Amino acid sequence: MRLRAKQRILARVQEQRTYAVVGAGALGVFYGARLQRAGCEVHFLVRSDYEHVREHGWEVESKDGDFRLPQIRAYRDPREMPQCDVVLVALKATQNHLLPHLLPPLLKAHSVVVMMQNGLGAEGAAAAVAGPRTVLGGLCFICSKKTGPGHIQHLDYGYVRFGEYAFDGRPRGITEALRGIGEDFQRAGILVSLSEDLVLARWQKLIWNVPYNGLSVILNANTAELMAQTEARQLVEAIMREVAADAAALGRSVSESFIQKMLADTAKMTPYHASMKIDFDARRPMEVEAIYGNPLRAAQRAGAASPLLETLYRQLKFLDERNR
Amino acid sequence: MRLRAKQRILARVQEQRTYAVVGAGALGVFYGARLQRAGCEVHFLVRSDYEHVREHGWEVESKDGDFRLPQIRAYRDPREMPQCDVVLVALKATQNHLLPHLLPPLLKAHSVVVMMQNGLGAEGAAAAVAGPRTVLGGLCFICSKKTGPGHIQHLDYGYVRFGEYAFDGRPRGITEALRGIGEDFQRAGILVSLSEDLVLARWQKLIWNVPYNGLSVILNANTAELMAQTEARQLVEAIMREVAADAAALGRSVSESFIQKMLADTAKMTPYHASMKIDFDARRPMEVEAIYGNPLRAAQRAGAASPLLETLYRQLKFLDERNR
Repeated sequence: MRLRAKQRILARVQEQRTYAVVGAGALGVFYGARLQRAGCEVHFLVRSDYEHVREHGWEVESKDGDFRLPQIRAYRDPREMPQCDVVLVALKATQNHLLPHLLPPLLKAHSVVVMMQNGLGAEGAAAAVAGPRTVLGGLCFICSKKTGPGHIQHLDYGYVRFGEYAFDGRPRGITEALRGIGEDFQRAGILVSLSEDLVLARWQKLIWNVPYNGLSVILNANTAELMAQTEARQLVEAIMREVAADAAALGRSVSESFIQKMLADTAKMTPYHASMKIDFDARRPMEVEAIYGNPLRAAQRAGAASPLLETLYRQLKFLDERNR
Repeated sequence: MRLRAKQRILARVQEQRTYAVVGAGALGVFYGARLQRAGCEVHFLVRSDYEHVREHGWEVESKDGDFRLPQIRAYRDPREMPQCDVVLVALKATQNHLLPHLLPPLLKAHSVVVMMQNGLGAEGAAAAVAGPRTVLGGLCFICSKKTGPGHIQHLDYGYVRFGEYAFDGRPRGITEALRGIGEDFQRAGILVSLSEDLVLARWQKLIWNVPYNGLSVILNANTAELMAQTEARQLVEAIMREVAADAAALGRSVSESFIQKMLADTAKMTPYHASMKIDFDARRPMEVEAIYGNPLRAAQRAGAASPLLETLYRQLKFLDERNR
């Protein structure tokens, strides 16, 4: 027993993965800082706060306990960074046109790229740059925000669901890459689940993201307001059912009880502004293509008309363009 | 020839209709004042400006020529008014719950009630009070607004389309009531058309009202902004097509060329905020049931799903409730 435990520790050290975090917003910093605190070597690509964090590191104010990392590996340019075993992409999906510039310097032959983004299409965009390397999706269920230079606030949740991307959209099952990266996150104290079918996992997340993100912007309302008003709640439900029908057209089944649980959970949540609303209010580009455009086109290619998704898409495109 | 002309004039004097105008907003004042200026006896039910207009009358600033009517017949209470041959109801549709109180004192056995309102359902609401009397719809194509006590501004258009209501929804053709009231309006210098089929006329008007009224509120945009942005314009078109499909489910055909003409005309219009947007900004109740709820229920009873109309309805109900 003692010998096996030793061997396991040795194996762990040998296979210790190095991490690059691309996109040091609240989400990237939260997961990267947790991994570093758990002993991983983490390299952060930092834009706006570079001078500050180079000197002071990260400060994480979290419902799970505050902590500081005074010493971090921060870079302004990916060409200054070492190649890493795992590249966590925590950019907004609206920044994915930068991937051909940001990713290549970080990739070795067997690097794994993890797209920690909303919506659909992120893994395809990464695979176009990463070539034959493994690409994962990391679906983040977290409320966090940046509150100052090097300072982020983790308000609620934190859970990540990983699934492996396949070019043909078929389920890849639980792969070695999934398991290894999942274990690192777990050791960092993050609740993790592994999905055999990334496409299903992404559509399940869209069931929540499509109604609440869009309506929070279009109706200028938080989750509690949407759930409290009769017609708004009916609209949320109708959108969820349409997204489930779109998933079904792509061969993925989302049950009615899943929808009901999501409605009930959201009604119980503290009033929450979806990430798209936060972007809109800050006059940042919204993830309209990732959360609406790409799912809409996928559904329509599969023969689903999706009139509600299309209506929200068009309303949000208008609001997004005018907001710049 | 001379004798026939004299007889015609005599007949006209004998059959001179008296008018009551219920609802002295910009629309009611404009048409009532034009009728009075053309020689009709017009009685105005006035709410807020009573003292002022009793003393000073109406002042109409119009693109067709400004005019004043220093002497008018104004009342604060329908019970002080004489019974009239024609009752023009120019209230907002949101005020129709007042009809059982406002209409009866004005009605003689053969009075005609004309509902000069948007959307669907106005004539049914009037008929519920007016019993066997003739009820017309008066569809007003006009840009006008109240700018001060007793002062209204007529900015554009002015055209009215009349049609006669039938309980069973069937076309009534060109009736005597339509012709007589249409002639009075024409003599008052108003462009008039008569419709054989009020239901068709109302759905044709909805083709414009449904997209532009709702989207002007939901997207905080005028007609020009909606027509200039790709997805917003696509949404306008998709809504128009769905409303046309709803009309078709009710046996009324609206052609594609009608839709194309409406799009082209609106694109050429000076930037315009639909009436619903004006109500919303003034924190008045919006005509959501008249323009969205009633058409939606009529379409769904006829078997048309109407997902876009339903989505707009639910979004507007939310915004309307929060706006009070």
